[in-house]
Amino acid sequence: MCKHCRVIPKKPVAMKDVATRLGLSISTVSRALNGRPGVAEPTRQKVLAESQALAYVISPATSAVTGSRTGRIGIVTPRADVWYYSSVIAGAEEKLREHGIETILHCLPTESERRDFFSELPLQHSVDGLIVVSFPVGADDPTQLDRLRTPVVSVSVRFPGVPFVSIDDRLAAIQAVSHLTRIGHRRIAMIRTVDPDGLPWAADLARTEGYIAALANSGIEGQDELIVTAPWGIDGGAEAMERLLSLVAPPTAVFCLSDEVAIGALRTLRRSGISVPETMSVIAIDDHPMAELTDLTTIAQPARQLGEIAAEMVIAAAAGEGLDDVVLPTRLVARHTTAPPPAA
Amino acid sequence: MCKHCRVIPKKPVAMKDVATRLGLSISTVSRALNGRPGVAEPTRQKVLAESQALAYVISPATSAVTGSRTGRIGIVTPRADVWYYSSVIAGAEEKLREHGIETILHCLPTESERRDFFSELPLQHSVDGLIVVSFPVGADDPTQLDRLRTPVVSVSVRFPGVPFVSIDDRLAAIQAVSHLTRIGHRRIAMIRTVDPDGLPWAADLARTEGYIAALANSGIEGQDELIVTAPWGIDGGAEAMERLLSLVAPPTAVFCLSDEVAIGALRTLRRSGISVPETMSVIAIDDHPMAELTDLTTIAQPARQLGEIAAEMVIAAAAGEGLDDVVLPTRLVARHTTAPPPAA
Repeated sequence: MCKHCRVIPKKPVAMKDVATRLGLSISTVSRALNGRPGVAEPTRQKVLAESQALAYVISPATSAVTGSRTGRIGIVTPRADVWYYSSVIAGAEEKLREHGIETILHCLPTESERRDFFSELPLQHSVDGLIVVSFPVGADDPTQLDRLRTPVVSVSVRFPGVPFVSIDDRLAAIQAVSHLTRIGHRRIAMIRTVDPDGLPWAADLARTEGYIAALANSGIEGQDELIVTAPWGIDGGAEAMERLLSLVAPPTAVFCLSDEVAIGALRTLRRSGISVPETMSVIAIDDHPMAELTDLTTIAQPARQLGEIAAEMVIAAAAGEGLDDVVLPTRLVARHTTAPPPAA
Repeated sequence: MCKHCRVIPKKPVAMKDVATRLGLSISTVSRALNGRPGVAEPTRQKVLAESQALAYVISPATSAVTGSRTGRIGIVTPRADVWYYSSVIAGAEEKLREHGIETILHCLPTESERRDFFSELPLQHSVDGLIVVSFPVGADDPTQLDRLRTPVVSVSVRFPGVPFVSIDDRLAAIQAVSHLTRIGHRRIAMIRTVDPDGLPWAADLARTEGYIAALANSGIEGQDELIVTAPWGIDGGAEAMERLLSLVAPPTAVFCLSDEVAIGALRTLRRSGISVPETMSVIAIDDHPMAELTDLTTIAQPARQLGEIAAEMVIAAAAGEGLDDVVLPTRLVARHTTAPPPAA
């Protein structure tokens, strides 16, 4: 039994419990429950009845209404079908499963869905805790989480009073942009993103700060025309790159919020006949599996590990333990989309 | 209220119920539950007590032990962090959410984890139904699902007595390979995949059948050396392509089980200096977002829609409705990795 399971029941009704109560072997109970041959019908009925009775007394569903634990943790995420979110979800689900805890997945793409969800959560008694994965920050959000009467851990977004696990987004941006200044770039653009509601992500805000700080560290003044904002994703990155190429003086390098945005930017550059990295350098943050394929230089972040750690934190929080925030390191992965700028 | 919600309760305890019982406005109840200012403490206590009481009577957790519904559907999948599975999950979760049903995510990568899960499920009373997403077929699996005492719908894998939604994998392979024969290829390889346990997926078996059938339709005899099997994924595809290039007479075209496998094969071809499509054609199945980026010719399958339909089917099954299997169409997306073979 894992050290946290004193609080959240692990597999509360197991075949072994049923077998012990009836004086049967586990394999007989298993065969009976699965309708396999080799078990007399009266025995099968006894196994089913005992299973139901045990479940009635100590199943997670029962314990929820008696005021104890549900055996379930919720993950709240804007979406499940892109690399970053699906990696965090996979990491968290695996770790929760190891502790015998079920994962309830809540994909809430809009601010109004999130507001409704957090308003109604206290009524539902359906989870022992929540993992909130990087969603865009609206005006209302920060005041909600700390008033939920359930433990909450956030991933890559910081709310007052809520423990979090994250990379240092500002530092990751500094790592990316400093790589560009170090090899001689001075005219460096950034592609930022907004969600479909037009809200920025916390990571976007911190990475933009890091971009500006890294430029300042090299004595470069930021220029508004070099910061463009697009919807998140490949198409957004492609369109943002088109806008940068529409400038009278385009940049010699582009820092993209994420790899998928950079992959869109690379598509535009390829279609424009602009050679990467000879004429234009591109760098991003993530280390998406496709980054290797496209030879994209990027700052790697351990998305799956963020989910694993968030799961361990929320289990500890549900056990009443105090939590320290966790910041995971990021690092440069040097590939072939970055090079010194063309000679003037 | 949606047409299915007569069976599975939608948001069983809503703020409106609490407000009605206490003669308060919904906004007062909301403020009380969320700990916001503007509500007298005695009122807040009344709201909390009434919420608890209502939840006790009719929450999904309670109804589970009184023999009715849980308001939850489980999704069983080998993994959550690659395009196909994450798209199915996202589609199903969205549709279930529309019906007020929670999604429990079960990622079970190995055969033994799946066997344990299905054995213990009847004891847990934790879901109203299951969506089982394409996992590799082991010797034991087919006999388990139809003996669970909960409605099951499968996605892209067929089990006796279990309704399913899928593409026609055999036909999708025929579409891919026929495209190659139509433009003149005769020496066509296939890259198959196995899971980490060494088990084939149902989709792999059906696509291999389709590959052989399409060759036969063009009077081409299949050759064992042209069928290679690798672990699923980019690296597997890369390694399988290396093996095909090790043949004394390599193929002129390769049909890959999926886009991610093809992307690995393209990486090997690029590193080998073999030009695509001039010297080697590559085609696959999926239409992954990266397929457009890599100009990969592929057979598109609607993964998200598979999840949406599976959700509607399992809701109907939980309502006791009979179900017909659903087969969604696939289609060729012509891009730039396929061309006639080089002149002999």
